[in-house]
Amino acid sequence: MERVQFYLPERAAQLLHRVQTSNPLVQSVTNQVTTNFVANTLLAVGGTPAMVDVEGEAGAFAKVASGVLINLGTPAPDQRKAILEAVQGANHHGTPWVLDPVAVGTLAVRTELARDLLPQRPAVIRGNPSEIRALAGVGTGGRGVDASDQAEDALDAAQQLTELTGGVVAISGPTDIVTDGTTTIRVTTGHPLLTRITGGGCALGAVVTAFLGVDRTDQPDSAGDKNTDLIATVAACAVYTIAAQLAAEGCAGPGSFQVAFHDVLAALTPDDVVRLGRFS
Amino acid sequence: MERVQFYLPERAAQLLHRVQTSNPLVQSVTNQVTTNFVANTLLAVGGTPAMVDVEGEAGAFAKVASGVLINLGTPAPDQRKAILEAVQGANHHGTPWVLDPVAVGTLAVRTELARDLLPQRPAVIRGNPSEIRALAGVGTGGRGVDASDQAEDALDAAQQLTELTGGVVAISGPTDIVTDGTTTIRVTTGHPLLTRITGGGCALGAVVTAFLGVDRTDQPDSAGDKNTDLIATVAACAVYTIAAQLAAEGCAGPGSFQVAFHDVLAALTPDDVVRLGRFS
Amino acid sequence: MERVQFYLPERAAQLLHRVQTSNPLVQSVTNQVTTNFVANTLLAVGGTPAMVDVEGEAGAFAKVASGVLINLGTPAPDQRKAILEAVQGANHHGTPWVLDPVAVGTLAVRTELARDLLPQRPAVIRGNPSEIRALAGVGTGGRGVDASDQAEDALDAAQQLTELTGGVVAISGPTDIVTDGTTTIRVTTGHPLLTRITGGGCALGAVVTAFLGVDRTDQPDSAGDKNTDLIATVAACAVYTIAAQLAAEGCAGPGSFQVAFHDVLAALTPDDVVRLGRFS
Repeated sequence: MERVQFYLPERAAQLLHRVQTSNPLVQSVTNQVTTNFVANTLLAVGGTPAMVDVEGEAGAFAKVASGVLINLGTPAPDQRKAILEAVQGANHHGTPWVLDPVAVGTLAVRTELARDLLPQRPAVIRGNPSEIRALAGVGTGGRGVDASDQAEDALDAAQQLTELTGGVVAISGPTDIVTDGTTTIRVTTGHPLLTRITGGGCALGAVVTAFLGVDRTDQPDSAGDKNTDLIATVAACAVYTIAAQLAAEGCAGPGSFQVAFHDVLAALTPDDVVRLGRFS
Repeated sequence: MERVQFYLPERAAQLLHRVQTSNPLVQSVTNQVTTNFVANTLLAVGGTPAMVDVEGEAGAFAKVASGVLINLGTPAPDQRKAILEAVQGANHHGTPWVLDPVAVGTLAVRTELARDLLPQRPAVIRGNPSEIRALAGVGTGGRGVDASDQAEDALDAAQQLTELTGGVVAISGPTDIVTDGTTTIRVTTGHPLLTRITGGGCALGAVVTAFLGVDRTDQPDSAGDKNTDLIATVAACAVYTIAAQLAAEGCAGPGSFQVAFHDVLAALTPDDVVRLGRFS
Repeated sequence: MERVQFYLPERAAQLLHRVQTSNPLVQSVTNQVTTNFVANTLLAVGGTPAMVDVEGEAGAFAKVASGVLINLGTPAPDQRKAILEAVQGANHHGTPWVLDPVAVGTLAVRTELARDLLPQRPAVIRGNPSEIRALAGVGTGGRGVDASDQAEDALDAAQQLTELTGGVVAISGPTDIVTDGTTTIRVTTGHPLLTRITGGGCALGAVVTAFLGVDRTDQPDSAGDKNTDLIATVAACAVYTIAAQLAAEGCAGPGSFQVAFHDVLAALTPDDVVRLGRFS
């Protein structure tokens, strides 16, 4: 773990540079509430968003996408069909996919869907502590989208999930915790204003997908390599929360924060990441 | 009525304080156009948004929610099923629900749906004058979402609706009119820029739901008490329009108004409401 | 063509004035990602947005709308039914409709749908170069929503499409190219930040629909007149890209650009259009 952490700011900076120069195509099957924010966040970080969530398209598109985001925020019946098709397509073509289990545990339809998706091995699961605990079968999922548990309390659940999926789990909170079951890294940058706008978590899931895709593209031999995915996820969390931290400076509230967040993220440089990255 | 008005600024201020400290969970079954704005407005005022609009989840969630918003802006077939389930769940569990009859009168599907929903007794109906008139069976609903009639012209229709539902009706306009059929209160704060952005009415419906929920939570014995709901609705209209008024100061147009509105709403204090509230 | 260009700034300015004073009702059957941005852009330019995309309503509403926008960004099954109904209603009632073939060529469902819609003669098709080429049956559609081809390379394809539809085609790019097959006009205003936010193309399609509608309303005898539609489309592109150019001045990035764009568009005067319009 020490070995890994030593290079983290530099590796995160390199990955940001690659996202900014290769513009990875991120397929997002996501909720209606935050899809605009998710798309604009992907554009700001350097990704290419494509919200392809229609059955008959979602599976084929997963072949050309660099990564696929599956967000369960508003899983209408037609979208559920597209989700299954997208995941199958992603797995068939070796495209990494990310699961954001919004409000799992609290709500029946998505909880069942999320449990069906787990054996299909998402490369990364990103959720708040109550969602991660509920997905692992411990805890009840809180009140939906808010994070009532502490991230550390969900670490055991996260590690159980990595055993099931063979992938990485990221728990969002004041400190983001990222684990592949063996190595656990904490990202300590960020700002509470991220929790005062809708989509703060959803858009992070999308940025993780962008970083995951570019890393796999650059290192095809490492496809499915948990360590590569772990670093990509950590890098995405760092870039995202550093931008939030910078954007919050001088903001009057959540409205201006959202605007500044996209401005800052679009202007963020690899040097900023080296200078401001904090990991433990 | 004089008795009621005497305390209005103070009661509105108290209710804002309770929303800010108890963060009522507002289930929103709402349209695709403004769902992001609605969610961010709820967060800004202190509520906890949950856009749960999937059949199989919507009914059960109405049990844990403090209030349920039903907005008919884009009533796709699957969402219509969720609406019926959510209202049934709300009524079964005693959760107040709010009806926003967007473009009723102009459009057939939602008009029929709205009339089916009326006997299920929404605690509050919030609409523009043409919607309120069309829902009561007078007038044709105008051109959809715009408010071509004056609020005062819809007062008779609003009073007819309160007889049908046993609840409260709020007519939006330069002056908001809120009535329970017996008492009628006018909220005279506000700003025309609210009509220059999409979702200005939708988000008010959500804020009404938040205020309704917190008031019921604090005063369980008053559940179903029209006077309690009347005051909660008036308070929500006042808080919302005071924030709009403050946000409009120094704005360059509708883009910066939307940003400032969320900043101001998130920073609004009960003292601001006492100082700026205007009722008649 | 010289005759046409001579008056273009003045005619574009006149049309903006008419949109601002008559507030044309624009029915938008559009994607989930950018519907909020589209609606706010329509409000800013002076239009009246109505996102009516439910079967049972979409056809009837096309009778009262000034124009209908069909955007294929997220064509879910229920929305596809509404699209067919809206187009049929528009044609039946002589309401002009605009086709935005988002990601056609790349994705199967919408490609088939777009080809079914072509014989129904959209008054205007607006797309990026790869979409226009794919719709005409040349090229593969690029990676979805981005514009990988140059606009000039799609001019032949655009002219083929005008033969099929009898209407106008607008190709978006650093220079917008608008053609009715006979006359071709280039709009050279604009700013790259429009490509750094989601919905930059979608909202232009909506503004084209607003301009098309108002021009037809003012000149009923010219209904179906390609030259009238050509000028309306050129005027919409000019107004939109002039606003983008002005909004970009002093912007810190895509977040503040989006805000400034709506502020500027809402404040844009006919004189600005005369002063800043650039055509070739």
